[in-house]
Amino acid sequence: MALSLRRRLPLLALLLAAGGLRAAERSSGSSSAMEELATEKEAEESHRQDSVSLLTFILLLTLTILTIWLFKHRRVRFLHETGLAMIYGLIVGVILRYGTPSTSGHDKPFSCSQEDRPFTTLLVNVSGKFFEYTLKGEISPGKIHNVEQNDMLRKVTFDPEVFFNILLPPIIFHAGYSLKKRHFFRNLGSILAYAFLGTAVSCFIIGNLMYGVVKLMKLVGQLSDKFYYTDCLLFGAIISATDPVTVLAIFNELHADVDLYALLFGESVLNDAVAIVLSSSIVAYQPTGENTHAFDAAAFFKSVGVFLGIFSGSFMMGAVTGVVTALVTKFTKLHCFPLLETALFFLMSWSTFLLAEACGFTGVVAVLFCGITQAHYTYNNLSVESRSRTKQLFEVLHFLAENFIFSYMGLALFTFQKHIFSPVFIIGAFIAIFLGRAAHIYPLSFLLNLGRRHKISWNFQHMMMFSGLRGAMAFALAIRDTATYSHQMMFSTTLLIVFFTVWIVGGGTTPMLSWLNIRVGDHVPSVEEMSESRWLYFRMARILKEGTEQSRKVLGSSGYGIALTIII
Amino acid sequence: MALSLRRRLPLLALLLAAGGLRAAERSSGSSSAMEELATEKEAEESHRQDSVSLLTFILLLTLTILTIWLFKHRRVRFLHETGLAMIYGLIVGVILRYGTPSTSGHDKPFSCSQEDRPFTTLLVNVSGKFFEYTLKGEISPGKIHNVEQNDMLRKVTFDPEVFFNILLPPIIFHAGYSLKKRHFFRNLGSILAYAFLGTAVSCFIIGNLMYGVVKLMKLVGQLSDKFYYTDCLLFGAIISATDPVTVLAIFNELHADVDLYALLFGESVLNDAVAIVLSSSIVAYQPTGENTHAFDAAAFFKSVGVFLGIFSGSFMMGAVTGVVTALVTKFTKLHCFPLLETALFFLMSWSTFLLAEACGFTGVVAVLFCGITQAHYTYNNLSVESRSRTKQLFEVLHFLAENFIFSYMGLALFTFQKHIFSPVFIIGAFIAIFLGRAAHIYPLSFLLNLGRRHKISWNFQHMMMFSGLRGAMAFALAIRDTATYSHQMMFSTTLLIVFFTVWIVGGGTTPMLSWLNIRVGDHVPSVEEMSESRWLYFRMARILKEGTEQSRKVLGSSGYGIALTIII
Repeated sequence: MALSLRRRLPLLALLLAAGGLRAAERSSGSSSAMEELATEKEAEESHRQDSVSLLTFILLLTLTILTIWLFKHRRVRFLHETGLAMIYGLIVGVILRYGTPSTSGHDKPFSCSQEDRPFTTLLVNVSGKFFEYTLKGEISPGKIHNVEQNDMLRKVTFDPEVFFNILLPPIIFHAGYSLKKRHFFRNLGSILAYAFLGTAVSCFIIGNLMYGVVKLMKLVGQLSDKFYYTDCLLFGAIISATDPVTVLAIFNELHADVDLYALLFGESVLNDAVAIVLSSSIVAYQPTGENTHAFDAAAFFKSVGVFLGIFSGSFMMGAVTGVVTALVTKFTKLHCFPLLETALFFLMSWSTFLLAEACGFTGVVAVLFCGITQAHYTYNNLSVESRSRTKQLFEVLHFLAENFIFSYMGLALFTFQKHIFSPVFIIGAFIAIFLGRAAHIYPLSFLLNLGRRHKISWNFQHMMMFSGLRGAMAFALAIRDTATYSHQMMFSTTLLIVFFTVWIVGGGTTPMLSWLNIRVGDHVPSVEEMSESRWLYFRMARILKEGTEQSRKVLGSSGYGIALTIII
Repeated sequence: MALSLRRRLPLLALLLAAGGLRAAERSSGSSSAMEELATEKEAEESHRQDSVSLLTFILLLTLTILTIWLFKHRRVRFLHETGLAMIYGLIVGVILRYGTPSTSGHDKPFSCSQEDRPFTTLLVNVSGKFFEYTLKGEISPGKIHNVEQNDMLRKVTFDPEVFFNILLPPIIFHAGYSLKKRHFFRNLGSILAYAFLGTAVSCFIIGNLMYGVVKLMKLVGQLSDKFYYTDCLLFGAIISATDPVTVLAIFNELHADVDLYALLFGESVLNDAVAIVLSSSIVAYQPTGENTHAFDAAAFFKSVGVFLGIFSGSFMMGAVTGVVTALVTKFTKLHCFPLLETALFFLMSWSTFLLAEACGFTGVVAVLFCGITQAHYTYNNLSVESRSRTKQLFEVLHFLAENFIFSYMGLALFTFQKHIFSPVFIIGAFIAIFLGRAAHIYPLSFLLNLGRRHKISWNFQHMMMFSGLRGAMAFALAIRDTATYSHQMMFSTTLLIVFFTVWIVGGGTTPMLSWLNIRVGDHVPSVEEMSESRWLYFRMARILKEGTEQSRKVLGSSGYGIALTIII
């Protein structure tokens, strides 16, 4: 049951590439016309469908943007943009599922036996001409004739690695890059405790509870295939990645308590990294021998070793590239050319991801720490223009990626073809995540309060308990492997948990804040913000000085006088 | 000899996806461990190599950026960044070619005969397990055993469609979006004449001259395979796409004559579109019957029809989405949320590409006209922040894409495995492009001067003649199909022409300008720039006002007074 996490990376490929990327047929050379024409027509048709399916997503995002605007315009707070994206995704999913005809594709299965293991490339001799085929993956024998009957449904199904290698990195990088340093570092100890200890505790509690649920299901005959203890632990790791994007958006808007914000934000950013590494370590936990999936001390410690190795390696990678970028920007006068600076920044940040993947670490985690280092060191060396450029660039990328993932989630509820909804498992999962979160927030907060000067008050703890939303990361981890029965059930359950928490918890944030008496509106500018505004002021003044001269030229001195009186 | 242009689109897939995107093996379900482990190790290895090859490109770009900075810093003008990117690409290409061991990949050919035509998907039964394969393309029988022996070389070879669908759109969109409207529209007639008539004339003259060269080669026995008249015409279309990016960069820097700038820029932007559509029309020119590749009036007119159809369709698509975006941004108050506005702008512009591809038009051409429309209408509805955001976003994308293409070109000279360098053909091509450009610039300028108030002077004509560089577009068109002997020869020749023109012509621009006595440094602010600066002034004043209040808070009134005296 090897998950092969981090391995199947069609590298940074597939930017929103629909379907399995069937490189369409290319028939070249001298050959008879009719056959070729048919193949080409087919390829063209397939290409058109690709375009249409991508257009569907773009339409979805466009609709989401316009509705978000309406909501922001009218100050609606009960539904966040991510929740909205999911709703639109759901609607389109229903249309695609029930509205499009079930075409049985033109990809007729063709069997030919090989004796050896599968090669990555296959050369097939078709009446004298040779065609090259690349391996896409294994198909379970029962599914050969009934998978993916609907062309459109297949087109809107992405390779799971797209999420991990294209969509998550900008989201995670942006999280690291936009971290509010002061409050983050002031609460660093607590954040690390919540992220590391908390996520581990939550993972194990959820995993064990779910193992109980699975046992129960087996007892009452609700389980139709294998579901191992390691699967339960993996589910615990997947679902422990919190993503309180909705809550934080509202916090930001209402200027809620900065320390609470820092705790929640820091925890969620770091626990994504912990959850990724944790899940790959659980996958690496493969006891030897045929009697697997039971506890094995050696394998357990190997997993712990893997966890520590991957985590520290990824951390190092990210930090090192961040520091290198900082040094380069410091010792060259690159800031005279903001375009070059921004491009360099982008490339260096991206290279972190590749470097980590090339070394066998986790790119997403490396990118997170790279983001933090870039914000901490490089940001201060950048020109003012590059600062806003890089911020804005990653903001846009983050925005698009996030809304894409959420609308895809809505879509996936109807277009994913291998859902397994088990009521017992789902109810059990909801209870488990509730208990898991409680068992990590309250005891940890108690322990932390023993050492903290600014105690984490009860209402803060309740708010943190409440803010345990699941989002993009849980989804990306769950969709990574949906090959077996247990993983399919986990994926379907994760999807429902994300829907529920984003809609219900997201919508309940504002009432919850007032119910818990958490102060809002106390925005005290931080030191950075102050120096930023001072910087801005000096810069503005310089621009204004230049602008004044030019305006005088343009408007003439009398017009300039009039303009001046209008403004001041 | 169907080229199947515009058809094989692994849609917007493969953002810098190395190699043929062999979706690595995924072995799932319950199966014996050893075999699976081997497959996974292989997949992991392949993934690592993907990362390394992408890292190579990023390193290349980073190096280019740092060197560009040095050059700009020292005001070196004889080598433009694109030329530099090519040089670095060449160096890395040499290293990869001669420095890496020639590993014969693990993709052993496996033959199994099919009776029917090739399917897009293949299911292969390997000792009871089923694997899915996707069609990659046809391979000529002679090449089965000797193609792509070197893994690293294969990894750095991209699917040609990557250039067309990922890298060209941002470049072309940026060209349209950054068009300086006033001078462009003032010279619109001349630009259209140069772009449409000029490119057509150039294409036919080059095509016919090259047909003569090919005849000559056949006579002296230098030609070892077929080379049709249509191939020659296609070469004419490919090589007629000029790309004076180097020249324009220098013009911009030296503030050379704005009309000349507008003429050159407008011509090069539009003639890219003409060249794309022309080449697809030539491909569509397929006379019926076995005695093909001769002149056939019906097929000719069909091609002309195709040209007009594709061109006007793409134009409409681009213009319509541009106008729709303009209307949306006008009638919503989206400009209060620059992030949403920017995201919407990006998505709408991208949807043009997809829409055009979905309708069977040319996405790149549609994107160009979308860019022009967006600049003309939408730009004015955007908030000030979004204006700079969108400009900067596309500027960065354009910069990265362009330098990537140019460094890839350098690389391709050594890593592309099917080069055919024919000295006669190459010399012929250089003469043909010289004559082709002369035959289009001078007579057209003469005709245009009959109607123009501001005549195009002789030195302007010489400068335009001189600025006929070939760049990214010619390369992308040439690499699109390298399946046959004639196309391989055309590709190699195009590569050399690009190298020569970018280095020699690019380096000679500054001397040429002074030799032709073309005025430099006469920067008169345009109306837009003036209104922009006025806008900026008002906005700055507002920000300053707010900034003043905040600064007073931060600095205290005495500190504020000191700051003020420092500035003013």
